[in-house]
Amino acid sequence: MSEPGTLALLTDFGTKDPFIGMMKGVVLTLAPGTRIVDLTHEVPPQNLQVAAFYLMASVPYFPKGTLFAVVVDPGVGTERKIIWARTPSHQFLAPDNGVLSWVEEREPIQEVRWVANKDLFLSQISHTFHGRDMVAPAAAHLLNGTPPEDLGPKQEMYKKLAFPRARREGGRLHGVVLALDRFGNAITNIPASDTGGAKRVLFKEREVGPIKPTYSHVGEGEPVAVLGSFGFLELAVRKGSFARTFEAGEGDPVSVE
Amino acid sequence: MSEPGTLALLTDFGTKDPFIGMMKGVVLTLAPGTRIVDLTHEVPPQNLQVAAFYLMASVPYFPKGTLFAVVVDPGVGTERKIIWARTPSHQFLAPDNGVLSWVEEREPIQEVRWVANKDLFLSQISHTFHGRDMVAPAAAHLLNGTPPEDLGPKQEMYKKLAFPRARREGGRLHGVVLALDRFGNAITNIPASDTGGAKRVLFKEREVGPIKPTYSHVGEGEPVAVLGSFGFLELAVRKGSFARTFEAGEGDPVSVE
Amino acid sequence: MSEPGTLALLTDFGTKDPFIGMMKGVVLTLAPGTRIVDLTHEVPPQNLQVAAFYLMASVPYFPKGTLFAVVVDPGVGTERKIIWARTPSHQFLAPDNGVLSWVEEREPIQEVRWVANKDLFLSQISHTFHGRDMVAPAAAHLLNGTPPEDLGPKQEMYKKLAFPRARREGGRLHGVVLALDRFGNAITNIPASDTGGAKRVLFKEREVGPIKPTYSHVGEGEPVAVLGSFGFLELAVRKGSFARTFEAGEGDPVSVE
Repeated sequence: MSEPGTLALLTDFGTKDPFIGMMKGVVLTLAPGTRIVDLTHEVPPQNLQVAAFYLMASVPYFPKGTLFAVVVDPGVGTERKIIWARTPSHQFLAPDNGVLSWVEEREPIQEVRWVANKDLFLSQISHTFHGRDMVAPAAAHLLNGTPPEDLGPKQEMYKKLAFPRARREGGRLHGVVLALDRFGNAITNIPASDTGGAKRVLFKEREVGPIKPTYSHVGEGEPVAVLGSFGFLELAVRKGSFARTFEAGEGDPVSVE
Repeated sequence: MSEPGTLALLTDFGTKDPFIGMMKGVVLTLAPGTRIVDLTHEVPPQNLQVAAFYLMASVPYFPKGTLFAVVVDPGVGTERKIIWARTPSHQFLAPDNGVLSWVEEREPIQEVRWVANKDLFLSQISHTFHGRDMVAPAAAHLLNGTPPEDLGPKQEMYKKLAFPRARREGGRLHGVVLALDRFGNAITNIPASDTGGAKRVLFKEREVGPIKPTYSHVGEGEPVAVLGSFGFLELAVRKGSFARTFEAGEGDPVSVE
Repeated sequence: MSEPGTLALLTDFGTKDPFIGMMKGVVLTLAPGTRIVDLTHEVPPQNLQVAAFYLMASVPYFPKGTLFAVVVDPGVGTERKIIWARTPSHQFLAPDNGVLSWVEEREPIQEVRWVANKDLFLSQISHTFHGRDMVAPAAAHLLNGTPPEDLGPKQEMYKKLAFPRARREGGRLHGVVLALDRFGNAITNIPASDTGGAKRVLFKEREVGPIKPTYSHVGEGEPVAVLGSFGFLELAVRKGSFARTFEAGEGDPVSVE
């Protein structure tokens, strides 16, 4: 028998209800050997940008062939399709709402299919939980070896979300806060690789200082800009919360000069 | 070797402490191949109704033979027994406090036993954590093939919680809110199958409108009644929280006419 | 092939971001058969005492040979080392910041090594996430059979945190609150085994009453002292929260006489 497949789940379902448990039950019913990994289920409800970003950041760390099921689905129950996509290293299932787009910052998407084959879904499909009734069983079938051709027709057109790329203007690189993590660090869209020679970092025109190798280069309670683990500039407060101290939110402007 | 067994855990232990990790450690020590699935550990502390409801809703989605360990246990340390129960498709371990009762809305309970055999427990049993010291090791032994007869004697009498069935009166079907999910949706006890021909839905005598196929049939911020994924009527606010906007709580009245 | 190894994770990374998912992706890429168990990821940020305590309390319940990866790491990015340690039953990876110390309350640490071999890490090491870039791949290699000698040189000196032992004085045993659990129970450092003959328990000089066998020996809403599941005296409020009712915090004094 071949190695069991890996399924990585990324959703906004939270963990207080049994939604994720139900999805896992469906997967293990159909594909008992599957190794299931939770990326996170606490994407802010219906926030496609945070989901797209966390997916993009996580993909490179997973085994080749991992199937990522991303269920952040503000259009559940509407005509929006479920799609399957493939990069050279991984595969994906998600609603066709753009949540897969930023993966292309890491790996090119080479094929997209509409998941249309009803034989791959549960026999009863609710209007509000396609993650359980369509995505989970389709994932199990894929991991069991169902060939992608059986999912449904190729899609040339699918929804794309533009990655909010930092732009250079007037000697500065202008970016925004993409996400706030558990520690209150503000993760920006300014690539670590574009910060060479930077003299200072500004948050909402307020000086944060130069980029430091790590948090401990400033005193406790002081702000610090570091090159973060997602490959982007991050703003932190040592042993504190940048989000709280600076009242930072998604979309707030950050610049480097 | 046979397929490893599946153990589904449903508790009110939360995830901030190592309680669930300890239970898993005990299970994997005794039954190393077990596939463990978390249903949720965030049942409100000691809330048997929410646990009973989430169990009932989840059971149909799990592999045949799955053992559900349900540890919501306000009477821990008292004389209440730990029981094992069997339906045609699944098996269960739980304190004898009624938390298994609503499973019978889906599958008949065919056999109940008192888990009395001390050989199946840890050698030291605390007074406050029977989930770790009794339920986890008993689960592991069952998954290892210990026959149910070895658990202890059959129980004819065990605690039952009545399912709060919606009742028809004066041309209306009267129900209540059973649970509030992570999105602030209010899940009721009104079966989707009993709502045919319904013209309007009322929450605390306030009109929510007719039942719609899905959330997107109303504008953002507007309330909507839908047939939810648990098989019951649900009240939602599109891209908002019904719980917050309508100050909804468990037990609040909902009716359909 | 031998039994797959067990990896238990204890961190302060939370579950809202994909940090833990990334670590698991790294482990499963290198050691696909690993059984990964989450102890908890909600250690209060950078709180070494709570992590040390939860580790100490959990270790005895895990399979022999389990590798515990503990990533609570206020000094990430500084010169502090990553160390590997071994007791007769288990092994550990953690920053050299004392977080492993209290394990010695349960099992002697017999060998400590500096994890210095760069071949065991990811090729790119961030300055802020050594859990993913160093600990996770080193764990996978260990579980794959890399001998500890290959990690790096033995360390005779490593950081130790003193366990805050309760002390006897004036006919009383004086202790403190070590942690507050999800239910609002206050877990103290007073060993259950030292409470024989105790007549009364005091919290901040306020009488809690004598030690009871379990919660249900007092009325709802009343405080109660019990011998808790971690092996220490605990203070609770039946069907309530001791932490909230008594405004209890870590370090608050508790005594027994």
